Amino acid sequence: MHCPDQKGIIADVTQFIHQSNGNIIYIDQYVDRVHKSFFMRVVIESLFQKTTYEDFQTNFDRDIGSRYALRCSFFLEDKIPNVAVFVSKYDHCLYDILTQQRSRKLACNIPFILSNHRDLESVAKQFQIPFYHVPVTKETKPEAETQQLELLKKHEIDSIVLARYMQIVSHRLVDAFPNQIINIHHSFLPAFPGAKPYHSAFERGVKIIGATSHYVTEDLDAGPIIEQDIVRVSHEHEVRDFIEKGQDLERIVLLRALKHHCDRKIMVYHNKTVVFN
Amino acid sequence: MHCPDQKGIIADVTQFIHQSNGNIIYIDQYVDRVHKSFFMRVVIESLFQKTTYEDFQTNFDRDIGSRYALRCSFFLEDKIPNVAVFVSKYDHCLYDILTQQRSRKLACNIPFILSNHRDLESVAKQFQIPFYHVPVTKETKPEAETQQLELLKKHEIDSIVLARYMQIVSHRLVDAFPNQIINIHHSFLPAFPGAKPYHSAFERGVKIIGATSHYVTEDLDAGPIIEQDIVRVSHEHEVRDFIEKGQDLERIVLLRALKHHCDRKIMVYHNKTVVFN
Amino acid sequence: MHCPDQKGIIADVTQFIHQSNGNIIYIDQYVDRVHKSFFMRVVIESLFQKTTYEDFQTNFDRDIGSRYALRCSFFLEDKIPNVAVFVSKYDHCLYDILTQQRSRKLACNIPFILSNHRDLESVAKQFQIPFYHVPVTKETKPEAETQQLELLKKHEIDSIVLARYMQIVSHRLVDAFPNQIINIHHSFLPAFPGAKPYHSAFERGVKIIGATSHYVTEDLDAGPIIEQDIVRVSHEHEVRDFIEKGQDLERIVLLRALKHHCDRKIMVYHNKTVVFN
Amino acid sequence: MHCPDQKGIIADVTQFIHQSNGNIIYIDQYVDRVHKSFFMRVVIESLFQKTTYEDFQTNFDRDIGSRYALRCSFFLEDKIPNVAVFVSKYDHCLYDILTQQRSRKLACNIPFILSNHRDLESVAKQFQIPFYHVPVTKETKPEAETQQLELLKKHEIDSIVLARYMQIVSHRLVDAFPNQIINIHHSFLPAFPGAKPYHSAFERGVKIIGATSHYVTEDLDAGPIIEQDIVRVSHEHEVRDFIEKGQDLERIVLLRALKHHCDRKIMVYHNKTVVFN
Repeated sequence: MHCPDQKGIIADVTQFIHQSNGNIIYIDQYVDRVHKSFFMRVVIESLFQKTTYEDFQTNFDRDIGSRYALRCSFFLEDKIPNVAVFVSKYDHCLYDILTQQRSRKLACNIPFILSNHRDLESVAKQFQIPFYHVPVTKETKPEAETQQLELLKKHEIDSIVLARYMQIVSHRLVDAFPNQIINIHHSFLPAFPGAKPYHSAFERGVKIIGATSHYVTEDLDAGPIIEQDIVRVSHEHEVRDFIEKGQDLERIVLLRALKHHCDRKIMVYHNKTVVFN
Repeated sequence: MHCPDQKGIIADVTQFIHQSNGNIIYIDQYVDRVHKSFFMRVVIESLFQKTTYEDFQTNFDRDIGSRYALRCSFFLEDKIPNVAVFVSKYDHCLYDILTQQRSRKLACNIPFILSNHRDLESVAKQFQIPFYHVPVTKETKPEAETQQLELLKKHEIDSIVLARYMQIVSHRLVDAFPNQIINIHHSFLPAFPGAKPYHSAFERGVKIIGATSHYVTEDLDAGPIIEQDIVRVSHEHEVRDFIEKGQDLERIVLLRALKHHCDRKIMVYHNKTVVFN
Repeated sequence: MHCPDQKGIIADVTQFIHQSNGNIIYIDQYVDRVHKSFFMRVVIESLFQKTTYEDFQTNFDRDIGSRYALRCSFFLEDKIPNVAVFVSKYDHCLYDILTQQRSRKLACNIPFILSNHRDLESVAKQFQIPFYHVPVTKETKPEAETQQLELLKKHEIDSIVLARYMQIVSHRLVDAFPNQIINIHHSFLPAFPGAKPYHSAFERGVKIIGATSHYVTEDLDAGPIIEQDIVRVSHEHEVRDFIEKGQDLERIVLLRALKHHCDRKIMVYHNKTVVFN
Repeated sequence: MHCPDQKGIIADVTQFIHQSNGNIIYIDQYVDRVHKSFFMRVVIESLFQKTTYEDFQTNFDRDIGSRYALRCSFFLEDKIPNVAVFVSKYDHCLYDILTQQRSRKLACNIPFILSNHRDLESVAKQFQIPFYHVPVTKETKPEAETQQLELLKKHEIDSIVLARYMQIVSHRLVDAFPNQIINIHHSFLPAFPGAKPYHSAFERGVKIIGATSHYVTEDLDAGPIIEQDIVRVSHEHEVRDFIEKGQDLERIVLLRALKHHCDRKIMVYHNKTVVFN
């Protein structure tokens, strides 16, 4: 939930939950002093004996939500999101997502994998997940996107992860999935946006390279950052070493971001993320 | 504050503060599910118009504290603690503490520096801090401790930091300053307790060395851990490299622990620390 | 190569390679001053026009090796080792090894996977690798080992990786594969050896947990350490969080160690490793 | 030393040293395959019995240097460089440099401290180091620089460290001290060059902030990078937290760079550094 910062919110919210027979398992809050905004994430254990889940939501919005101009999202822990994976030719991020999901460490369904190339079809087959090959050329891009949107709708997709998809996603998809498309960029943003960041990092002679996972917005590589991490390099490393070390980073950073997203730990505001972890 | 975990605490505490015209600037809580204990740290901004600071404490204990069997410590931000620094011959931790305190990044007074050697007297002089030379031998240890206790009392010391003091502090000091004596041990505890940890780490062929800051208890190097950090080593590093790299670590880890302590961010229970950071 | 440290070795070795029309692509050396031992790793590009590969080895041993009491191992880059993977029930390390090997980032063949349980048979199947189920009980342990040794021989295995195998490997295997069995232990050794290290770490209240990959020797968790890494924890993390964070660490640390091993970058001496990286 | 990459260099250099009765304590080399350049750093122990130090240099240049078009710098370990420290108002980097130098962990002389403000004169006094106050305004900048150049000459300064000097150094100083002026920039370059990087990083919502130490060239914050490091931040941190965490980073990163520089471990080429560490 988030709202303009005011006195008494925490007291009222916790009291409401308490009185609704809910047990607070986890509570974390954050106040952005610059924008005077209040954010809170609460995990509740409840038997919903007196009230149903729907009643709880309705009552909360009526009693608390309206009083504080509070916007709240409700999630049930056992209703996990449907995530589509878009890839191109690299398999390292895809493999990590699939194996972690298979081991139940990543709480999502993966209804399909989509790619503009056929290279990773065998990986999809290995994990018995439907694979759609949707080639993209300059001319066919609008049609390809229409096809993508249809697939996303048909499979009731909640979120999309671009696991090194290598294609710029246009505003039609971004508009349809606001703050629901997660990308991994292979640099320490805002350094080296755009193409070939490892080559640029090598050229500049940096001593540390990074990877950045972010929500996709219409501005390239400029969306809200979810997670970043780095690894040391030295003069001894060539571009191919940057790529090799970087790929290990990419899969770790993307997976962490995706886990937070699927666990509903992220709120987005002012092109930034609040990650309650 | 801490108490047995019960429903409704957060609601009641925040409501009490709210009604006392206090504004919650920071709130963080933690529930230890194993021991069913509740911990909370709250920072309040208050003008104490209706009530005085003393009234606030009294009312809180009466209205909330007694209801939840809650134990609460109150601190005023502008009343910083008096910290005595015990050293031996190494200057790296001492220098860091003194320069950070001088730059107002470490919120404490340093009424005196005490050592069993005269080597660092010049550093104390450089920073115009009283220096006491209290030699310790096997025979004179009881007398030395009596002298230390007198000095600590005379200077109204709240906490002691052992900045590589190299002497085992006996139960008389530990009893007089429970959870108020901070030590830096130059290993990644519980690995390599006791003397010469860098030599032991080298002998074992570890790839990472560490430093650990902890509260001193009667069991050597076994008190509640406040902060740890590590640095990579390789086969190329000799014992003297371990020492050099380790000393950089020691000063950073000790300083972080001391800052948390002076900022009253640490609670101790069951030989562990809760660090609200 | 390694030998007692003497003057002139580097000059003689590099000159020999130069005169044999070899081009040094990589050279790294290390002198252990305590034991006065010299270690060097050299990567050579050669067309072997004048001499064959076998001649090169013979000549080197005759001209250089004997002069310096130098022990040298020769490897051809395109002859990658055969590695058997031993697992129990956890899949995280296994998945990482298989996907990285499949993506050609781990330079080895994996002739078979062996387990004392049937749980991961499906993963082996998914990657089309033979799976042997060899149950181990107190009574059947000697027989099980005989069966293991036969399988290792039949498949011409060079090295074994214990990817959370959870069984103590006896001296028969250790003797048959000296410095060729790689284990991952889920603690920052030498802290918390033996069973349930995450529980012990939680009990002690550490602020950092680790994982250690090492060669297996007859002493439990006491063999030469290859690689270690750590991750921060806090009072907020319970044992299950330690396990979750730790498993990510285990797969990364084991994979790094295994890559170094397969790339022949590791030398073992005095229960330590020299890792030329 | 560095030169175009050719076969046989290492062999010839090590043989020359061997025949000159020198004992190689440390050798590290690096080949830049893109530019086909060879770099090597060698540490020699020598009694110079047969030859003097000057003879050794002359002979080396004649026998080896000319053959390989090799450019070599010779340093005696006991001749440490003279380093001038330029500061403005922040004391954290200055304190670290002074205390580490005083503890003999930083191998340089510090003949003077220079500032455009009087704020840190007391720190200079505390360490009994001459302090020069050279105010800089837009109008007086040329004069100020002339004064600086005179002071640098008079004190026989080898290198300058800008310990948060906050002024742009002009080409006159850069030309006079090529690859000898070390700056600390409080961001992870090339991200956030120029003024107020912590504010920009906060605005962008990054999850990691950094500090970069580099040699000063005529292009602002674009010189060869020596060392970088980072620290994690989260949505909970405000700009002042970025600054506080960042300052700890600045002093560590600048000190590491300065140590490498004083230990003559750095070579500069193509706007990059080779750091033999």
